[in-house]
Amino acid sequence: MNDLEKLITYISKIPGIGKRSARRAALHLLKNKESLMLPLAESIKATAQNIRSCSTCGNYDVNNPCHICTDVKRDKSVICVVESVTDLWAMERGSVYRGQYHVLGGVLSAMDGVTPEDLKISQLTTRIKKEGIKEVIIATNATMEGQTTAHYISQNLEPTQVKVTRLAHGIPLGGELDYMDEGTISTALQARKAI
Amino acid sequence: MNDLEKLITYISKIPGIGKRSARRAALHLLKNKESLMLPLAESIKATAQNIRSCSTCGNYDVNNPCHICTDVKRDKSVICVVESVTDLWAMERGSVYRGQYHVLGGVLSAMDGVTPEDLKISQLTTRIKKEGIKEVIIATNATMEGQTTAHYISQNLEPTQVKVTRLAHGIPLGGELDYMDEGTISTALQARKAI
Repeated sequence: MNDLEKLITYISKIPGIGKRSARRAALHLLKNKESLMLPLAESIKATAQNIRSCSTCGNYDVNNPCHICTDVKRDKSVICVVESVTDLWAMERGSVYRGQYHVLGGVLSAMDGVTPEDLKISQLTTRIKKEGIKEVIIATNATMEGQTTAHYISQNLEPTQVKVTRLAHGIPLGGELDYMDEGTISTALQARKAI
Repeated sequence: MNDLEKLITYISKIPGIGKRSARRAALHLLKNKESLMLPLAESIKATAQNIRSCSTCGNYDVNNPCHICTDVKRDKSVICVVESVTDLWAMERGSVYRGQYHVLGGVLSAMDGVTPEDLKISQLTTRIKKEGIKEVIIATNATMEGQTTAHYISQNLEPTQVKVTRLAHGIPLGGELDYMDEGTISTALQARKAI
């Protein structure tokens, strides 16, 4: 295997990038050696060296604890539980939530053999006790696994007597009924509010 | 912008990778620092250093001229003209063609402002004369631009009196009529063969 073939193999190991996309990506890099290929290699190395996982919440940042955990302006009494760092970033893009986070590192899945021990669930309980948390907002995804995980966590937190909430489900803003599945519509109907 | 944000920006410059995929790719790399992230950075650097464009055909290889141009077992009298190196690789995966290649580096496109001077068309004419080529197989894609480019090249080659052919068009193997566009069906009908 020559260098180019090796590179294509590495690129295709990134989730969401198939063999064909990997080939195209490698060629695009070769065509833009100075402007993209070499800077990308440097950037990957710098990120590997400088970015670490926050030992408190699981976010990635140049500092540990991360800038969210150390931000004095944020509410220290609320924790939002998310599956992954991408979900944490999605919440932050909303710019509404001003509390803490806790990244689980996945969801419970019988099929993939993911058990509670594989996720940062016991760490969550420890934090709730230690940090005097008043509310836990569960923001796992609205998938089967996400819902199961949310249910498991809320049961698991019962002894701590912390308030546990869940992101609301319903029609997304801009969503058209015709494109929504029945589950979403019936959930939205049951959770209807007076206007 | 911290290292991670920079990395995401670089990754999203690769065609076919949006901002969301870039974020997920960066996180996947961070999660697999030793097994993927650092080897990938090394692999990109090695490829940038060792892989060059073949000055004869335009293929990428560790050697210039490339292993196809220097392969004594391959037919030196036939050139297959392709748009890009990915198309050259696609032809090679077929393992049927045993001649030379010529990578144009794109297609004629009025919309994108690509003129014959932007493509390696004059180099093709030079090669045909110098290398004593007997047949030119045009294998540009069956898109509007690909067809226009094929037409332009075949007209451009008329003075050289070389035999110019084109890949056949029709129903792909395994293709179902119900899924084919009318253009493909009518082309296949007109090009029908006795069995």
